[in-house]
This record gives sequence, C-alpha cells and structure tokens, in this order.
Amino acid sequence: MPYPTAAIPPHSPRIVIIGAGFGGLQAAQSLAGCDAEVVLVDRCNYHVFTPLLYQVATGVLDANVIASPVRRLLRNAPNVRFLRENVSEIDFDKRVIQSDTEILSYDYLVLVTGSKAQFLGISGAQEHSFPLKTLADAIAIRSRIVDCLETAVAEPDRTETLLTFAIVGGGTTGVEVAGSLAEWVKTTLAKDYPNLDRDWVRIVLVQSGDRLLEEFSPSLGNYACKRLRKLGVEIRLGTKVDRVTPTELYLDTGETIATETTIWTAGVEVDRPDILQDVQTESKGKLPVRSTLELRDRVYAIGDLAYLESDGKPLPGIAPVALQQGVAVADNLRRQLRGKMPKPFKFFNKGRLAIVGGYTGVGNIAGFRFRGFLAWLLWLQVHWVYLPGWYNRFVVLLSWLAAYLGRDRVATLQFRIQSSEFRVQKKVNLKSK
Amino acid sequence: MPYPTAAIPPHSPRIVIIGAGFGGLQAAQSLAGCDAEVVLVDRCNYHVFTPLLYQVATGVLDANVIASPVRRLLRNAPNVRFLRENVSEIDFDKRVIQSDTEILSYDYLVLVTGSKAQFLGISGAQEHSFPLKTLADAIAIRSRIVDCLETAVAEPDRTETLLTFAIVGGGTTGVEVAGSLAEWVKTTLAKDYPNLDRDWVRIVLVQSGDRLLEEFSPSLGNYACKRLRKLGVEIRLGTKVDRVTPTELYLDTGETIATETTIWTAGVEVDRPDILQDVQTESKGKLPVRSTLELRDRVYAIGDLAYLESDGKPLPGIAPVALQQGVAVADNLRRQLRGKMPKPFKFFNKGRLAIVGGYTGVGNIAGFRFRGFLAWLLWLQVHWVYLPGWYNRFVVLLSWLAAYLGRDRVATLQFRIQSSEFRVQKKVNLKSK
Repeated sequence: MPYPTAAIPPHSPRIVIIGAGFGGLQAAQSLAGCDAEVVLVDRCNYHVFTPLLYQVATGVLDANVIASPVRRLLRNAPNVRFLRENVSEIDFDKRVIQSDTEILSYDYLVLVTGSKAQFLGISGAQEHSFPLKTLADAIAIRSRIVDCLETAVAEPDRTETLLTFAIVGGGTTGVEVAGSLAEWVKTTLAKDYPNLDRDWVRIVLVQSGDRLLEEFSPSLGNYACKRLRKLGVEIRLGTKVDRVTPTELYLDTGETIATETTIWTAGVEVDRPDILQDVQTESKGKLPVRSTLELRDRVYAIGDLAYLESDGKPLPGIAPVALQQGVAVADNLRRQLRGKMPKPFKFFNKGRLAIVGGYTGVGNIAGFRFRGFLAWLLWLQVHWVYLPGWYNRFVVLLSWLAAYLGRDRVATLQFRIQSSEFRVQKKVNLKSK
Repeated sequence: MPYPTAAIPPHSPRIVIIGAGFGGLQAAQSLAGCDAEVVLVDRCNYHVFTPLLYQVATGVLDANVIASPVRRLLRNAPNVRFLRENVSEIDFDKRVIQSDTEILSYDYLVLVTGSKAQFLGISGAQEHSFPLKTLADAIAIRSRIVDCLETAVAEPDRTETLLTFAIVGGGTTGVEVAGSLAEWVKTTLAKDYPNLDRDWVRIVLVQSGDRLLEEFSPSLGNYACKRLRKLGVEIRLGTKVDRVTPTELYLDTGETIATETTIWTAGVEVDRPDILQDVQTESKGKLPVRSTLELRDRVYAIGDLAYLESDGKPLPGIAPVALQQGVAVADNLRRQLRGKMPKPFKFFNKGRLAIVGGYTGVGNIAGFRFRGFLAWLLWLQVHWVYLPGWYNRFVVLLSWLAAYLGRDRVATLQFRIQSSEFRVQKKVNLKSK
C-alpha cells in the first residue's frame, strides 16, 4: 500500500469510489469504520451541493457556501482517504483504475461520476450556450449576466441582444433559473443601473414539451407557467431549438430570439471515464445495473450514471436517489465484506419540490400536491437542512435574507473560474507504463 | 452626453476618475451630490478591500466578502455613474480617455490606477512566482497551496518541493502571508492530511533588508521575526533572490530552496494607462504631483500612483493615504467647480498596524509602540470596521471565529479565477477611429 493510514489494518480489501457528488460522498461516509480501506477519488477538492447551483448562477449565493472541501466532510472517517485525481480509464479485468498520475487497484469499485450537459446535436449549442452542471458553470453564468448589464451601459446600440436572456429547458433547473433571474435583473436594475430600463430586459424560457415541470402534475406545471409569466418571463411551449449563434437563438417555430446569452438546461448525459471492457448502455449513456446496484461483480454504479427502474419507470437523476443509493451500496459492501450477498435497492420516494420564483414553489409529497408560498418556504428549509457545515448554513441564511427580504444579491462579482484544468504540473501519461 | 442620468443637470462639467480602489472610490463617494457628472471607471465590476487579500490567499476569508460591486457602493451617489471598462490611453491635450469601446472626454481627471507587482528584473520571478496584488492573485495562491497538499498525497516522491513554500519580501504583506500560512498548513495537516507529516512543511521567508517590517521600528521587526520563528517559519535576512525556476529558488547566499511555490511580495511599481504626453516619473514609475495632488491643471493623481513627500519622506502606498487623498481631491474639485483654488494635501498619520500570526501583531500609533495580542485584536477590529457592507462584516466575523477559535479555514476550494480578460465580446480597437 503506497499510502499507509494508521486507521487501516494491513491487508484490508480496498474499495475505490470514483466521484465525490451526493452518491459517492454518501457511500464513503457510510463506509466509515468498516473493515476496508476506502479511497474516494474526485477531480475537484470539493463536493458541490448541486440543488443550489442555480442560486450561484443568479447571484443569490456565493460559490464558497455551496461547496465544501471533501476532506472536511470525511474527518470522521479515518479509514477513508481522498485522492484529488482525474480518473481517465478503468480496467474491470485487471481491477485497476488509472488516474493522471497513478494506477490504483481495487477489490470493489463504486462508479458515481454523474452527468454532464447534453446538447442534443444542436448546431452551435455547445459553443454558444451556457450549461449549468458545475460550480464553474454557475459562476460563468453569473459573470455573463453581470457582463451583459455592464456592457449594455457602455454600448447602448447592443442593449437588445445584451439584455435578452434565453433559457432552454423547462424542467426544474430551467424554471428555477428563469424565476431567480427575473427577480434579480428586475430588482437590481432599478437600484444599480439607472440608465437601463427594466422593460428592456427579456427573459425567454424555451420548452420542447407542452408544459413546464413535466416531472410534476400538469396543474403544477401550469401554475409555474403562470407565476413565471407574472414575473415577466416569456414562455415558449412545444418549441425546439434549431440553432444557436453568438447573437441569436433560432427556434423551430420560425422565431429568432436576438440574445447573446443562452443558458442550456435541456438535457444531460453520462459523464464517465473510459472503460476498457464493453458495457451495455441505455439512453443518455446510462449503465443498466442489477437491482443490487451492481454493474457487474465487484463493481457498483449509482447516481446519474446508473440505469435502474423502479415501479416500471427509470429512477430520475436527482440528489435523493443518489444519496439513498450511496447508503445502499455501503450496506451491500459491508455485507460482501462479511461474505454475504448484496440486497436489492429500493427507492423511497419522499416527494419532490421545485422553487418557481416570486416567493412561490410547487411540491408533491406523499401524493399531496401543493403550491405557492408554503412550497417555496419548504424548499428553502429542506435544502438548508441538508447543506453540510454550520458556516455554510449561516451564510446561506444571511444571503437569503438579503435576497428575499432585502431584494438584493450578495454575490455578483464578475469573474470566471477554472476548476480541474489547473494543476501544479504537467500531467503524466501512464498509458505507456 | 451619451448616457443621460436624471440626477445630472445638462451641461455639467464631467469629472472622470480612473480606478475604483480605495482612493478612486472614496473620491467618487465624496463627490456625491456635487454639481458635476462624475464617471468612475474600472476594469473590474468590484472594489477590493486589499488589506484582507492575504487572508483570501490563506483560506481564512472567501473572495466574495472582501470585494463589493462598485455599483452597490455608489447607490447614494446619483450623479456618479460607473463604467466597467479598461482604460488604455489618455490624451491630456485633447482631454479624453480611451477605453476598449469608447472615447470619453473630461473636464477634470483623477488618476488612481494603483500599482502592480514588480519583479526587479530577477530571472524567472515573473514566470514562476505568485504575486499578491489582485483578487485573482489571492485565489491563485490559495489554490496552489491546496494543490500542493493534494498532489503531495498522490506523489510522495515530490513532497519536499511541494510542501516547501517560499515568500519573498519581509514587509507587511510578506510577514502576514508567512504567519497565516504557517497557522493554516500546520493546523489543517493534522485534521485533513493524516498521511502528511507537519514537519515536512517548510515555510521560508526571504528578506533583502537586515530585518522584517522595515516600516516599523527595529524592536517590532525583531519581535515579528521571533514570533514567526516560533510558528515554524524559517527567515533569511539580508538575502536577495538570484533566480526562480519552477522547482527552485536560488538565493545570493548560495543557498537553494527546493520549492514549487514562491510567493512574491518584494516590490511594486505603478500600473497605469499610456499617457500620450511626456510625464516625469519617480522611482517605481510614480508620478510626482503638486502639493494639491494635481499632476497638471485639471488632472489629479493619487494613491500608489502619485509621488508626494510629507515631512521629507515619500508617502507610502497604503490605504489610509489613498483614502485621505480621495477626500482631499473631492474637496479640491468642489473648490474648483466653485471657481476657487485647490488646497494643499496634508496627510494625517493615524499610525500603522501589522498582523504577525499566532494571535500577535505589532502597532505604532501616535508614537506609541505596542505588540502582541492587543495589536492583533486591534488590527482585526480596525479592518472589520472599515470593511464595507453588513453581509461582508457578518461573514468575516464568522470566518474569523472559525479560523481563530476553531482553527479551521472556511475558504479552501481549489480553482482559479480570471477577472478582466473575460468579456462578452471581442474588444474593439479604437485607435483607428
């Protein structure tokens, strides 16, 4: 073992978990104290609380409060070590993973590498639109919005395209971004940009389906539509994107939206390292797993990466699924370490919530549908409770007070970040080893 | 006037202020309500509270809390407008400044563009060391430190160079960085990096003069030296840097320090746009100004940019000087708007404070020298009071509690930022206009 840790007995089996998102982190934490060496690998040194990403993108929250260093979250797990590495390749036969600097063998492997934006092959979408999957994405969107406002002040002939913001995708993320952006831009213009008229700002939400929030009931989708329109968001239902350019968004209805900012929330696909063996895939590149969450013997796949049906429908790519799967994988691994068989995973659906904007939200909990202020408050409360760390919770509370009582945004600095590309030295290619 | 603002009467004279640091922002705020259109120009949309930069570099504070959007700080100044532009050229004869996208005329001009790191012509210093002058610099240092720790875990054969941190320059910034870095690395290693031994960490402070903190008395410099040594910092006095490479720092004593991280706090020089007319310069490119702070008729220069003597010595490049000069320039401009002559500037020296580390600091106030815990506490209190914004103050307080009571750092995400290079579109070259 190249990295002796006092807490790990010699000759312990090694469990490698790739990805420190909800599922991977939960699995690692649930394996604290087990009779194995656990190695959690991620390309970033931090875990991101992704349900709050849209609030970073719209200046409500600072990036630092929704991300926590992985090592801090593992302080109570002495048998778990963290490796900040990018995993490039996996060999199931040799039972090794290959990162930028080393080859690591495993006895058990848990794949939790998540998903990335999918641009559906639409011309210009990848080059000219802003996805919202990572911390860097969220900060890039926030900076672009500030940039548009600042540039609109300096270049009055470009105000139309600069002050039009398009959002593609009418699922939860698209609705949340549209609502929060409307609140932000409309209130901040009056305070900070006296020379820009708030009526010059257009926010257009483009949805291919015939209603918003298809993961909720039609009545809640229609409610969200009505509330967003009240906030000044233009909504195009049953509309697909043909093409994206730096200054236009072409729709299949023939309409062209003159905008320099298109935010892309319309689809995701699996984001994973190369696997040397053939693996079967489902739609979006998801890997079908057994009911025990095993992709094959000794290898688990969970979270957005895994395809598993529950009650005849595929499980959605949301945090509660990943968290419960993280716990289940840890249980199954503990069983296997004791020579027992893994057990099937059963998802317990606690319900869903989405925030719409203007102090309203929608919810569906235990078959009970509700909407309005209560759903909004419940959304904030649930996410606040799950956010790790007292500092983060405190600052989030302050930020929400500023945003929702003071109608001000506390995190609107304009800059961009680079996460994983930035390393202390050139990467070593180990394929030659 | 291309940007009519309701609050500005037509045909008002225009005052252009370049730079939203301490001096420029103060001048703009002090000109609120005067009978002139005031335009404050900066390449970033935010003002940085630079005395706390070293705390961002060492993970104590998040970047968002020491920077505030300029527009928020100008909400009570309706006759002041902000332009987020990079000024490339100034023509005193035509009375215009040229930014990336436009040419702006002025009746009065205030130059407050500050300073940047100066590498003294030392080979490799610019390419291979980390300056600490901007928000991006501070985050780059923090990320490099985290990167070194993470890489040291993955690559045991590089621990020597990765865990050695060199700081060049024994002035206030160098001492503050060394102390805070020692506190951080030594405490965080025990908590988060069980496989790295804290004795493997070396922090070396290189100072060309024969004592630290030359801006204070010798006894306080010696005290800082003693305290830093107690924190485990190695100090090389009377030592100059010969050369910097990616993995070594060569000193003129013949010693070579094997390090991948050299932080550069050894010197600054003026950072300013091109001026089409000849201007006289002093050391570090500073512009000598009249006692009224005028560089020439209608043009003021203040802050780090300006050279002015007080009691036979040049005024130092510190925040109090810039702030007082900002007030004085505003007063002089108000006088000139009323047809009166500008008055000479007189610096009121309130004293100086520096934080050393390990809950100690040094101070010199009204000729009274003190050191230790009281100076440390006073430093925190003074900077806390001057920091703008209730949100920032609240979060700083929380962060300090975490750092100084909890011995933990709340802002240690690894990423890099880009500030001003990132714009919505390609820049237009106006020289051809």
